[in-house]
Amino acid sequence: MAKLPTVLDVGLLAGVSRQTVSNVLNTPEVVKPETRMRVEAAIAQLRYRPHASARRLRTRKSATLGIRLDPMTNGISGSVHDRFLHALTELADARGLRVMLFTATGPEDEIRQFKRMHEGADVDAFVLTSTFFDDPRTEWLIENDIPFVTFGRPWGIDDMNDPRHLWVDVDGWSGLYQATTELIAQGERRIAYLGWPSPSGTGDDRRRGWRDAMTEGTDLTVPDLDALQLAVIDGVAQGREAIRELGEAGIPFDAIVCASDSLALGALLMVGPDVPVIGYDNTPVAEAVGLSSIEQPLEEVAAGALELIMGAAGSELVDWDVAPDSPRHRLVTPRLITRNRRIT
Amino acid sequence: MAKLPTVLDVGLLAGVSRQTVSNVLNTPEVVKPETRMRVEAAIAQLRYRPHASARRLRTRKSATLGIRLDPMTNGISGSVHDRFLHALTELADARGLRVMLFTATGPEDEIRQFKRMHEGADVDAFVLTSTFFDDPRTEWLIENDIPFVTFGRPWGIDDMNDPRHLWVDVDGWSGLYQATTELIAQGERRIAYLGWPSPSGTGDDRRRGWRDAMTEGTDLTVPDLDALQLAVIDGVAQGREAIRELGEAGIPFDAIVCASDSLALGALLMVGPDVPVIGYDNTPVAEAVGLSSIEQPLEEVAAGALELIMGAAGSELVDWDVAPDSPRHRLVTPRLITRNRRIT
Repeated sequence: MAKLPTVLDVGLLAGVSRQTVSNVLNTPEVVKPETRMRVEAAIAQLRYRPHASARRLRTRKSATLGIRLDPMTNGISGSVHDRFLHALTELADARGLRVMLFTATGPEDEIRQFKRMHEGADVDAFVLTSTFFDDPRTEWLIENDIPFVTFGRPWGIDDMNDPRHLWVDVDGWSGLYQATTELIAQGERRIAYLGWPSPSGTGDDRRRGWRDAMTEGTDLTVPDLDALQLAVIDGVAQGREAIRELGEAGIPFDAIVCASDSLALGALLMVGPDVPVIGYDNTPVAEAVGLSSIEQPLEEVAAGALELIMGAAGSELVDWDVAPDSPRHRLVTPRLITRNRRIT
Repeated sequence: MAKLPTVLDVGLLAGVSRQTVSNVLNTPEVVKPETRMRVEAAIAQLRYRPHASARRLRTRKSATLGIRLDPMTNGISGSVHDRFLHALTELADARGLRVMLFTATGPEDEIRQFKRMHEGADVDAFVLTSTFFDDPRTEWLIENDIPFVTFGRPWGIDDMNDPRHLWVDVDGWSGLYQATTELIAQGERRIAYLGWPSPSGTGDDRRRGWRDAMTEGTDLTVPDLDALQLAVIDGVAQGREAIRELGEAGIPFDAIVCASDSLALGALLMVGPDVPVIGYDNTPVAEAVGLSSIEQPLEEVAAGALELIMGAAGSELVDWDVAPDSPRHRLVTPRLITRNRRIT
């Protein structure tokens, strides 16, 4: 697909700045008639269309955000996506934006939905969740010049400074680092990590948080850490089984930090009341059974996502090529919630 | 607000049946020119506008359903609304319908949102949840002739045959009746009911299920049943406290059935492993702690809601006054999920 002309292309052809093009489009009365005519000619020649969707977002009038509703899982952590959706919808409503839901069977189907909804002018911008390395969805949206923000980093090389798209994420590294450091402060040494197999953007990030805290705060060796580092598919049964096997292998451990509440609940069901366990996501299940857990501040994530995407639309440029100094990323710090356990 | 004219009004003025009016609107070629002119004159005189939204729903093209996203609760049962939303969105997507979310601070604010979204033609029909007795939202939608279906009965007199609007609901009476009957079959007699204060449409319905099963299956007297019938605000702490007080009052009980998993979890935390407890909603928490619970078949509810509203739109009439023989309600039976407890 040929790239659509941008404000920059119009400016280059007319021999004016992007700001002048923007002025012609938005406040033509401030532009000299001669310049205005030159810009209008360039717009006509290039068939440039200012983005109606960007304008709707900018004026905050009937703009609609599309978000994929993840398939319902019976799992415990599915509620995180729902909690993010609640926060996003409430904050969007307060800003006069709408939230349109859709479902998709996978990334390719999701791209088909982007196309359909954007062509139908049903949706002005998208909010993506569960990004992954080499995500074809973000590539497609960038290529097609459709505004979007992701909850989740691009998970590529130097993604912290990735200039290609807007993102908000929670600092999973910090969550596990906090949890592990807290247990070390309580006197625990052999703290096991119960997480997911590599490669996993979020999983590898959380595991590094544990590993960095262990390396700094204990004298455990690399082989010790390797033995205490467990990787299983997410789930209560899987967590339970992994801890059973750790015990059967004769590897001693004093405490467990986990990549999810599902894994943590499985661990809880295997260990005695004296072994601290910390989960991740602070789900209703964690609260119900008295499991300490790391909470993702989802309101902050949702607010950040909206600010980034509206900030981009609110920039002085009409198109979505935001100025280089606009903030494009936000990394939110999670916090540890400690509780007294009620399950044995 | 004056009621908008309907197909029936047009037919009465033109001296023809509703079907003939519908034919003039949809298949004018089958109507005699003379009749057609009379109908068209009546349409003009009454300023009747066939509902574009009904037509969109009928043709299944870009029709959008609006649903209020309930405020996020930290509670356990909040996931029911989310699970319904997931089922609705997936099934709607498969039928080419969209789901637009909004939030509201209360019924009056929700009505303002209906108005705004319907006038803006953003939404063709609404799906309401958490209906209550004398619900102003349904009255407003009926008065304004806007298509909608409710998850929840009107909770008025003779609501099972209420002709005024489409609804789907889960038979809470049956859920508690099943749970109580099962415990009686297992030999329990003094089964307490832990529910919500009256009046509450859903709460009173569930309580009656317990009470009917007890009256039929045990020889407990009315004073016995009154003593075993507890009513508290929903919540884990409230459930725990109510069962503590029941014990302190010296009222013996063998088992507990509850109006929610939150109450059931509170009860679980107070009783020994030999006292069966059954919750309601089959939340992830119930699964996690091994709590038996009554499951609402939310996919069936969502499918029913869509069938009712699209069936109404698919009727041969262009407006939403469906034929008297179209199904207008669906009462879905929940099922009891039994589990081995993991919490003490």
